[in-house]
Amino acid sequence: MTFFALKDIQPKEIIPGFRGRFVHTECMTIAHWEIDAGSELPTHSHPQEMVVNFLVGQFELTVDGETRALVPGDVVVIPGNVSHSGRSLTDCRIIDVFHPPRDDYRD
Amino acid sequence: MTFFALKDIQPKEIIPGFRGRFVHTECMTIAHWEIDAGSELPTHSHPQEMVVNFLVGQFELTVDGETRALVPGDVVVIPGNVSHSGRSLTDCRIIDVFHPPRDDYRD
Repeated sequence: MTFFALKDIQPKEIIPGFRGRFVHTECMTIAHWEIDAGSELPTHSHPQEMVVNFLVGQFELTVDGETRALVPGDVVVIPGNVSHSGRSLTDCRIIDVFHPPRDDYRD
Repeated sequence: MTFFALKDIQPKEIIPGFRGRFVHTECMTIAHWEIDAGSELPTHSHPQEMVVNFLVGQFELTVDGETRALVPGDVVVIPGNVSHSGRSLTDCRIIDVFHPPRDDYRD
């Protein structure tokens, strides 16, 4: 097995207020995010399919023009190349998974 | 977007003590598990690559003969077709992600 403890992974602040710890595998990237309240995710897209697993907080997510207020226990599937943006209303914790891997998040 | 609230997904007890809520996408399966203390995961394998995101509890995981005591914040990558087994020492919560999807977990 390949084993990681998140506490031993250096977080990267990819966007102001969005600190991610990343595990890249052969097929996927797993992103464990800690997000500060009031942080803005600019509109963007990427070729990877993405699944948002929302753990802690409140986050306003807009996907292809449709906005949802996410709460813990919500799961959102965003197909590849679909524009999305968002805003954290509180401090948040999210696990995002991507296929194929997000090479742009590698060191 | 495709949106799910875990509370609206009916859990399935795939193995005694292992209740999973599944989201199947084009490329992946996301499994949100609630596991009772003292439950046994028999040795098995599957062709999918798998990533274990360990959220709550203590779980003894054996992958290809190597055993680890998992605690919250641990992430484990298990390649496809590699045998694994385990035992929950406490009630646990885990998010497993698979590529490609686990068609055997579909309705």
